[in-house]
Amino acid sequence: MELSGNYLFADIAKKVQAFKEENPEANVISLGIGDVTQPLCPAVVEALHKAADEMGQTATFRGYGPERGYDFLRNAIVENDYRARGIDIDAEEVFVSDGAKSDTGNFQELLSDECVVAVTDPVYPVYVDSNVMAGRRIVKLPCTAENSFVPGIPGERVDVVYLCYPNNPTGTTLTKDQLKKWVDYALRNDVLIFYDAAYEAFIQSENVPHSIYEIPEARRCAVEFHSFSKTAGFTGVRCGYTIVPKTLNVPLNRLWSRRQCTKFNGTSYLSQRAAEAIYTPEGKKQIRATIAYYMENARLMRETLTGMGFTVYGGTDAPYLWVKTPSLTPAPAPKGEGSSWRFFDWMLHSAHVVCTPGAGFGPSGEGYVRLTAFGTHEATMEALQRIKNKL
Amino acid sequence: MELSGNYLFADIAKKVQAFKEENPEANVISLGIGDVTQPLCPAVVEALHKAADEMGQTATFRGYGPERGYDFLRNAIVENDYRARGIDIDAEEVFVSDGAKSDTGNFQELLSDECVVAVTDPVYPVYVDSNVMAGRRIVKLPCTAENSFVPGIPGERVDVVYLCYPNNPTGTTLTKDQLKKWVDYALRNDVLIFYDAAYEAFIQSENVPHSIYEIPEARRCAVEFHSFSKTAGFTGVRCGYTIVPKTLNVPLNRLWSRRQCTKFNGTSYLSQRAAEAIYTPEGKKQIRATIAYYMENARLMRETLTGMGFTVYGGTDAPYLWVKTPSLTPAPAPKGEGSSWRFFDWMLHSAHVVCTPGAGFGPSGEGYVRLTAFGTHEATMEALQRIKNKL
Repeated sequence: MELSGNYLFADIAKKVQAFKEENPEANVISLGIGDVTQPLCPAVVEALHKAADEMGQTATFRGYGPERGYDFLRNAIVENDYRARGIDIDAEEVFVSDGAKSDTGNFQELLSDECVVAVTDPVYPVYVDSNVMAGRRIVKLPCTAENSFVPGIPGERVDVVYLCYPNNPTGTTLTKDQLKKWVDYALRNDVLIFYDAAYEAFIQSENVPHSIYEIPEARRCAVEFHSFSKTAGFTGVRCGYTIVPKTLNVPLNRLWSRRQCTKFNGTSYLSQRAAEAIYTPEGKKQIRATIAYYMENARLMRETLTGMGFTVYGGTDAPYLWVKTPSLTPAPAPKGEGSSWRFFDWMLHSAHVVCTPGAGFGPSGEGYVRLTAFGTHEATMEALQRIKNKL
Repeated sequence: MELSGNYLFADIAKKVQAFKEENPEANVISLGIGDVTQPLCPAVVEALHKAADEMGQTATFRGYGPERGYDFLRNAIVENDYRARGIDIDAEEVFVSDGAKSDTGNFQELLSDECVVAVTDPVYPVYVDSNVMAGRRIVKLPCTAENSFVPGIPGERVDVVYLCYPNNPTGTTLTKDQLKKWVDYALRNDVLIFYDAAYEAFIQSENVPHSIYEIPEARRCAVEFHSFSKTAGFTGVRCGYTIVPKTLNVPLNRLWSRRQCTKFNGTSYLSQRAAEAIYTPEGKKQIRATIAYYMENARLMRETLTGMGFTVYGGTDAPYLWVKTPSLTPAPAPKGEGSSWRFFDWMLHSAHVVCTPGAGFGPSGEGYVRLTAFGTHEATMEALQRIKNKL
């Protein structure tokens, strides 16, 4: 069994909690878990107030919503995230949920237990854990500096591949050409791609696709997961969506509909109205400003850490930086096996900064830590200064 | 495969939609799906506004919450739903979720596929569908007028029993003595009880338990599901909770924690603050008034339908009435097999009233329909009048 006893971030939270209890005076800064710090934008807050008032009046009260989401939100998603980019997606292919973690965790229920599942290594733990719980075999595709974090096509038969781009945890991307190779491989070999686009809003480069459906043939082989968590600070609001094309070679649209209608009862009306608000002109402007704020953090982190002698990947089209730990001179943590957890400990105990040890994302994550750009400017700058002082 | 192509209520919604399209002038009244009509109470709306404002300010913004729920809500649940009744439940045993349907649907993931699962018949479809999807064998325990809707102990080895009391769909209850027999059986035979207490807030009778843990030994064999959907009109807000005692004979608390941390990312902060508000003195008073409103509907429905010659069960400690269709004289629908769907059609086409055909809840539901007391007074009275006129 490849399943560890605890969920990675629950383990980290425990270690941080223990440190805080021993050092109650320490001002711990978290650049670890990918949680946001900036508040909901005014357009979203206004939508929440309006929805709360509606729910308090008989005439406008809403009970059970459609299991797959309200049309007002599904249509806004189709128009803004797809048609505006020239992609043909129908509202019947959109499934609104309480977040991409639920969907990426639950979607594997539609697979036979015999399916072989490929994931990148390092990887967001949910893809692996949810499939291992179901007893499926996992094939790992190493992504390291040696292959510029571009996974190679599996050397053996697999049935499903999870791809997350911009990538969590490495912050790296695939170009449209690189992604097209995966779509071509999937179609030739009857493989399903589960594409996690949770971080697409952070893309700055022209040649990096926001959706796998920018490659039109992907409509036959790919399911795409989206989150409002990082796009609009919805980590505490809970809303995301999944695209399950009706044109897939297997009838997953119908099966996912049956699954969701049976084991899910729709997303909070308030969360759906909140999500709708980010597609208004004001909402768009406001969330773009917040994303620019985080990407300015990312830029400063890249520059500052590089200046300190670290080798840094990611952080240009994603809110994550993937920092090589052994390149550090003089090395604050022992090199070799376990170095990412030891660097985590050093960061926490010396600089009072929380990172995520790369090994927690898989064996190829060893020798790296993940830093997030989701802190406040002030805390991020302070964390960088502390790391510098302790080197 | 015992899984029907569609979820029951999705099927009904389609039939109703088709009728409405053919009869756009018809004023269809739904006493079918168990959705509520009364708005959120003022204490809840106030809590939602407060939470929305908090989320709009950096200083009070909340990102990812604890996967198992915020302490403020878990503690309120423990104090009000358990300790106030003399039941010893710890906050670490409370798992807050986006609703009881998600939890009752997902909890079976902790079971081996070889487990044999007993359910009452008729039954809330989620217990059956989620287990059939996992390939488990189902044993049905008939509940009919003949056994006063009290299921008999299974005649063969089963591993898990789902019990829902007050019952959906029949609206009937178990006394404390009757429930104790199930707990004793479960402990003697190493059986798990999954107890769905979604309707406990509607209990009026003294000898009907609100929680299975009123039988103290149940802490060793029972998991309990709760919903705020009907208690406080949260069908569109999405919040519920599940109690997984640490004292169970199998370590389900740890396993459910691992499952939720992996595949779920916590319940909306706004929904949790809304749920907390129902435990304030004002909140309690307000939701009690709404429950009294629905139970007055139930009383009037019972009396009126009985007066028309129907045989009616439930509706005294539950918002559901279970109405025998063949007892009707003169019979508007053919008797025998299929009568509950035919009576559904008659109700829809003649009286423009939506009920739920008993057969949709299982074979022993044939010959009955479920009516809910969740309509407005006005619509409920109007529906009864129309049925009377069409008899």
